[in-house]
This record gives sequence, C-alpha cells and structure tokens, in this order.
Amino acid sequence: ATPKDGLTAEVVVVKSLDGIATRSPDDVTGKIVFYDEPFASEHVNTFRGYGASVQKRIYGASRAAKLGAVAVLIRSIGTGDDDHPHTGSLRYTEDAPQIPAAALGAHSADKLAQILEKNPKAKLFLKMNCQTLPDVLSYNVIGEIKGSENPDDIIAVGGHLDAWDTGHGAHDDGAGIMHSIVALQSLQTLGYQPKNTLRAVMFINEENGLRGGKKYAELAVENKEKHVIAIESDAGGFTPRAFRFKGADSSLAKMQDWMQYFPDNTIDAIRAGGGGPDIGPLNKADGTPVAAIIPDAQRYFDFHHSPADVFSAVNKRELELGTASLASFIYLIDQEGL
Amino acid sequence: ATPKDGLTAEVVVVKSLDGIATRSPDDVTGKIVFYDEPFASEHVNTFRGYGASVQKRIYGASRAAKLGAVAVLIRSIGTGDDDHPHTGSLRYTEDAPQIPAAALGAHSADKLAQILEKNPKAKLFLKMNCQTLPDVLSYNVIGEIKGSENPDDIIAVGGHLDAWDTGHGAHDDGAGIMHSIVALQSLQTLGYQPKNTLRAVMFINEENGLRGGKKYAELAVENKEKHVIAIESDAGGFTPRAFRFKGADSSLAKMQDWMQYFPDNTIDAIRAGGGGPDIGPLNKADGTPVAAIIPDAQRYFDFHHSPADVFSAVNKRELELGTASLASFIYLIDQEGL
Repeated sequence: ATPKDGLTAEVVVVKSLDGIATRSPDDVTGKIVFYDEPFASEHVNTFRGYGASVQKRIYGASRAAKLGAVAVLIRSIGTGDDDHPHTGSLRYTEDAPQIPAAALGAHSADKLAQILEKNPKAKLFLKMNCQTLPDVLSYNVIGEIKGSENPDDIIAVGGHLDAWDTGHGAHDDGAGIMHSIVALQSLQTLGYQPKNTLRAVMFINEENGLRGGKKYAELAVENKEKHVIAIESDAGGFTPRAFRFKGADSSLAKMQDWMQYFPDNTIDAIRAGGGGPDIGPLNKADGTPVAAIIPDAQRYFDFHHSPADVFSAVNKRELELGTASLASFIYLIDQEGL
Repeated sequence: ATPKDGLTAEVVVVKSLDGIATRSPDDVTGKIVFYDEPFASEHVNTFRGYGASVQKRIYGASRAAKLGAVAVLIRSIGTGDDDHPHTGSLRYTEDAPQIPAAALGAHSADKLAQILEKNPKAKLFLKMNCQTLPDVLSYNVIGEIKGSENPDDIIAVGGHLDAWDTGHGAHDDGAGIMHSIVALQSLQTLGYQPKNTLRAVMFINEENGLRGGKKYAELAVENKEKHVIAIESDAGGFTPRAFRFKGADSSLAKMQDWMQYFPDNTIDAIRAGGGGPDIGPLNKADGTPVAAIIPDAQRYFDFHHSPADVFSAVNKRELELGTASLASFIYLIDQEGL
C-alpha cells in the first residue's frame, strides 16, 4: 500500500527488467517506475508470451526499489483490448524496500503513456489501501471412486480451488475444477467400474505459493500412496487441443497410439511436456508421471487474473468437450495402463 | 407473414421432417406445427450437427402446409444457451401453400414446450408482418494485386458480403471478408511481389441463392480467366485449425508437406474436402481447385444467423491468427504452385 494519504511523484518509463537494469539511482530515486511493455503477442502459444512478459510483474518492484523508486506500475500482462487490470503474484526480494505496486488496464496504460510522452515531467498521484493478512488454515478437497482391481493405485486429476478475486476465477481455475469433477462423474454416470482408484483433487492456494500442491505431495509420500499418474487442468475451459505428458518415453509412445480414439477436431496431439503447477511437487517428490490437458490458448490471457474472468466468459460446449476429452484420457489410462 | 390481425391456433409438436412424415391431415389441419428438435450437439464438428438439424428449417413449412397446417414454428438451430432466434433460408415447394414460418430462441422454445406439455390444447397467437421485396441489382466487390510473373494466373480468396441482418454478420461472414482483404494487405505491407495475381473477392448474396458465386463463375468462364485456386473463408473468425482442399491428389500431398511451415497450435492439418459455398460454382464450371480455412467450430452456431453475431463476438487475436494462416497458405501456393 501507499502511505494513507497517497504519494505523488514523477514517472520513469521502462519496458522490462532489462530496461530497469540500464537505469541508475539518479534516474529513479523518488520516482514511480512504469513498466510499459506490451504482451509478447508474437508467440502463437500465448503461455509463451505470458512467460516472456511476466518477470517484471514478479520482480519489477524490488528491482526498481533497489534504485530508489517509491512505487511501480505495470501495463497489465494480458491480451484483451479493454481496461481490466490483471493481478498476479509479486515477489519482494530481501535486498530492497517493499514499495507499492499496481497494474493498469491496457487502455489506462495507453493513456498514461500518451500523457508522459507529451509531458515527461508529469506527476502521478497514487493511493492504494491493500494489505496482507495473516495466513489462515485451509484445505485441499478430494473425492474418489475406489478401484475395483487395484484400489491402491491412484489416477488423480485436478485443478486449483483458489483464484484472484477480481473476477470469479472462472477460467483460472473453475474450469479445471469442473473438468476434474465432471470427468469422474461422467464415468460414474455411465456405470463404469474403474480398475484403479480415480481421484479428483481440488488444490488450494496455487496462486500464492502452491501450498496445496506441496502439502498433497508431502502427504502422498508420508502415506506411501502410489499414483499411476496425476493430471492437471489449469489452462482454461476452451476447446481442447492436446495433452502434455511427462514420464517414461515408452508411456508417451503408448499414449500417442491412443490418438486413434480421439476423433477429428478434438485432441490433435499427445506430446512431451510438463504436467501442471499443482502436481509439480508430487512429480518432484516421488517421480509420479504427470500430464495436462491443453485447451486452445488464444483467449486465455484476455481473462487471466482479471475482472473479465467470469462465469459467462466460459462457453458451455467448449467446457464440455474438455471434460469429455479428459474422461476419455482417464478411461484409456485406467484400461491400458502406462 | 400472417394475416394482418394474426392467427390463433392449437399447436402440434413434432421433432423433425421424420416427425411430420408420420402425421396425417387429421392431426395437423388448421394447426400450427412446432418443430421442437434440439441441435444435434453429439457431433464434435458443429457443422455436421447443423447439417443434421437444418432440413426442417428449409423444408418444414411446405411439409406441414401440405397436411393443412396454417403456420410453422421451429426451435432455432443454434448451440447458444440464450433466447436469440436464428434466421436462415427456407424453401417453399410448389406442392403446398406458402404458410408463415418463424424461429423461436432456445429459451422461448423451452417455455412453449413446457406450456404444451401441461396443456396440449393451448392456443397460440402468431402475428408476423415480414415481406419479400423484389430483387434489386447488386455486385461482387473485387480487389487484386497483379502477378509479376504470371499475371493471368489468379489465386482468389474470398468470403461473402451479405448477412442476415438480425446481427452484424460479424462471424458470417465479416470475418471471412476481413481474412481475405487483410491476408493480401499483409503480403503487400511486407513488400511481397506475388508471381501470380492475388485476388480478394467479396461475393454478394451467398445467403439467399449463391448469386454472387454463380455470376463470378459465369464471368470467369466467359472471360477465360485461369484460376490456380479459389479459397474461401466462411466459417467464422475463430482460432484456425485446418485447411480443406478439393483438387488433384498430388496437389493435396504437396500441400500436406507444407505443414512443416505451420508452427504448433496454428494449423493442425490440410485435408481433403470441399472449398466453400461461393466458390463451389467456379469449381463446378471449370474444375478450379478449391480450398477453405477451417476455424475452430465450437462457438460458430452460438452466433450464426442470430442477433448475437456482432462485432464484439469476434476475438481480435483469433481473427488475426486466421488472417496470418491464410496469408501463409496463399504465399506457399504462389511460391510453390499446386
């Protein structure tokens, strides 16, 4: 937060962490640093664009504070042509004071950039009253269907329960939660008796430290649970395009053979790659193979961490296709193994 | 239209043309027939679902009129969970009187179905004042970049200019028009000198008889124009998924080799199949090879022929990716030939 009555200062415009690295304390001391970098939209996969753009949100405040800045603003890391500010995690490093940091919607960032171009000495008034509250105890939520042949072998599928509460968290990650629950519910409705135990896991606190995922992994190791695989859905409720898999090459080859069961226009590929944030700790702890469903990425960052991520932004048919693809994938793993 | 003061009649519910075929004049005479069939949403490709659902809109009025019905209503052929009525062409056959026909939005159709389930003798009042105006002269709109090596060899790309004016016609087919114009504009902006003549064609009157496409084909034959290929975009401004091609097997094989130039998550396949409605007449007239860009189909029938097909329903990034894919495809054809 800012001081109670706000703060007023001139604004230094830089593009990115590379930009701030070229500045000296003389340039920055007592000023607000404005990271004005557009989303890296040249990547066809928007998650790559996000990865290329997000470092300034995470480390920009401390880098600027180290040079004497009194606050930072960033152009929101999103693809939407709107004025929604996008939130997200920020890491204060120990080598700098913790200064206020805020994101501007794209239109507001355009406006500020225009003003500063005309008048580089313009002063900006910033007043923020956010606060960090103490931690409270929270929980992962887990449901399962016991396996009929190998009840101790678990196929887990999940998403995360928490969201940045500027919106509903509908695509991030309400969609993943619904994918996971409804995929298992669909198999149950069909009267399917799984060989292995099918488990839907709703991880808590992905957004701010992966605490649910870390605790899940810790308990899995402690309880000697055996996971056949853990699957994540945390990329929105859009038309499904692919699965990603991290595990034995022989397992990947086997899965790619299953492509024949996915009709045209559903899943295009099963390819090598990581699982997802919440199941990363489990993979790291005991080597559990991990996978993820990859929906079409083009619209995700219109909504991600913003007030636009609401229930009505999820298309029912696209969400259902994701659920159906996941249910098919889980069924194949349960029947055929890895 | 109905008589000026409207008409009031009981309602007979059937599902489809198969449903009306089982009815007799005794069931239907003097009544309104309500075709209450949900969209065939079990097809992953929604265009197949549309194909399976659309016959009752086209022929349902005449079939019901032949049995003595005074009007027909249909549940709109769309996938949206809303109350937009979807329009579209209807064909009166000569063996029956031309009775009024209207579409209901999904929610209104639900409500009517509920009322009729409780009270099958319920009467419905229908008043419509639409009219068919005489034909007027209209035009295709064409722009081209002359080829530097083979100016008489034409690569045409197009969509259609007309739309059902309940909405803006943004996906059907404003997107196709923008795809076509901007694909050529992009190549020009890059300073590209095409070998062949690149032509963007905005066909008129696709929706009500393909007259623009037919006239284009007629004039192409008359003027002995040589088309290398004609490409159509008439399936919305969504994330591109594939191209379809109808022509020599050797040309298709050559194109499939170009898949290497499309990075992950843009074009997944170039496959055999028809071109598009507006270029069909040209293909038929002189055997011109035809192709089409295939965007993701899941949301198309939320918008198609309804008040929801507005500018804001088109995602900028998805539209741009379609344009870029088309520009790449045209470039490859221009460079490599078929």
